[in-house]
Amino acid sequence: MKVVVLVSGGMDSVTALHAAAREHEVAAGLSFDYGSKHNHREIPYAAHHCGLLGVRHEIVALDFMDRLFKSDLLRSGGEIPEGHYEAENMKQTVVPFRNGILLAIAAGYAESAGAEGLVIAAHSGDHAIYPDCREEFMQPMAAAIQAGTYASIEVLRPFIHERKEGIAAIGARLGVDFAQTWSCYKGRTLHCGKCGTCVERKEAFALAGLEDPTEYEPES
Amino acid sequence: MKVVVLVSGGMDSVTALHAAAREHEVAAGLSFDYGSKHNHREIPYAAHHCGLLGVRHEIVALDFMDRLFKSDLLRSGGEIPEGHYEAENMKQTVVPFRNGILLAIAAGYAESAGAEGLVIAAHSGDHAIYPDCREEFMQPMAAAIQAGTYASIEVLRPFIHERKEGIAAIGARLGVDFAQTWSCYKGRTLHCGKCGTCVERKEAFALAGLEDPTEYEPES
Repeated sequence: MKVVVLVSGGMDSVTALHAAAREHEVAAGLSFDYGSKHNHREIPYAAHHCGLLGVRHEIVALDFMDRLFKSDLLRSGGEIPEGHYEAENMKQTVVPFRNGILLAIAAGYAESAGAEGLVIAAHSGDHAIYPDCREEFMQPMAAAIQAGTYASIEVLRPFIHERKEGIAAIGARLGVDFAQTWSCYKGRTLHCGKCGTCVERKEAFALAGLEDPTEYEPES
Repeated sequence: MKVVVLVSGGMDSVTALHAAAREHEVAAGLSFDYGSKHNHREIPYAAHHCGLLGVRHEIVALDFMDRLFKSDLLRSGGEIPEGHYEAENMKQTVVPFRNGILLAIAAGYAESAGAEGLVIAAHSGDHAIYPDCREEFMQPMAAAIQAGTYASIEVLRPFIHERKEGIAAIGARLGVDFAQTWSCYKGRTLHCGKCGTCVERKEAFALAGLEDPTEYEPES
């Protein structure tokens, strides 16, 4: 199948890109610069892996989100909270309907690119605090994309029954260099090691029994 | 209900804006500059009507669409076809998954603006050649937006049982000045009178028994 892969530059989507390059014809990897504090850190890794695989890479700039949307994930928002990803205070990093927006744009792009599928690295550990990660959202969204495109574009979620550590294990088997991926929401020079995504990243490597290749900021 | 209204500057969405201003609290009118040949003609009318009603107006620029998407509606596309809107050659003006993209962005914006509803001027005469105008698309899309937002945002389609001439009649009753609206896909100085949207605009006024206030290009 000819597919477009949503690739942020994080460990899940980079693994999905490598897996898709083996299983499908990848029309392009698609990254979104939606004004988050860490987009400028993660997108170069998306470009890196597309380059490695000889896949076209496109970046879609969504300047309006930082201007009009409220979220601490965005440059216009407040401080990124520290602690576990599942914690209540992580809600302030939710970007309203972000997955809906990214999937909709990717669907239109996929139709223009002659693709029949859209790969997103959603997984079973995705967080119930994010309404646009829930099945109640994903299923009708996929139905809307299928009905709303001439090509009846299918949303593929190859990792939906995996947890994050399972994806890490798959990536390791595919030879993904996770040092060339980015998770930290703070978007500084090094991973902070303390925000929700950093905590989750560390946990995934530990649970998968893999060495964590990430250079974290020294404890202050 | 507090709502965001999608307002392109065409006669349907301008009427929906005026109707919403009577029935709801309008948080904002939202226009999209997605790189079509006629966005620069229609958006100033959206701004005009928001101004008349004292409603906040926001324009979302989607520069990537003209660059990455294929459609003759876009500045990067070919000539706008002439003839009836329902004709097969109108397919070349379809912008892939445009309604999905606009609704998704509007949903995220509405959540950020504290709104609970989203008004779109979809009507029963909307065209089956456009897959993202069909019920099979609109119903799951609305379900995805409701499930994917904390506020369970509802998609309101006040004109879904109307035909375009019915909307013209409603607009006339609300005192909408249709001279201050734009339809023509060609986006020149005057309405061409020959493209699908111009044909449909003329038809709507005629069927509604209203005088057509539009200045069309002289016959060459």
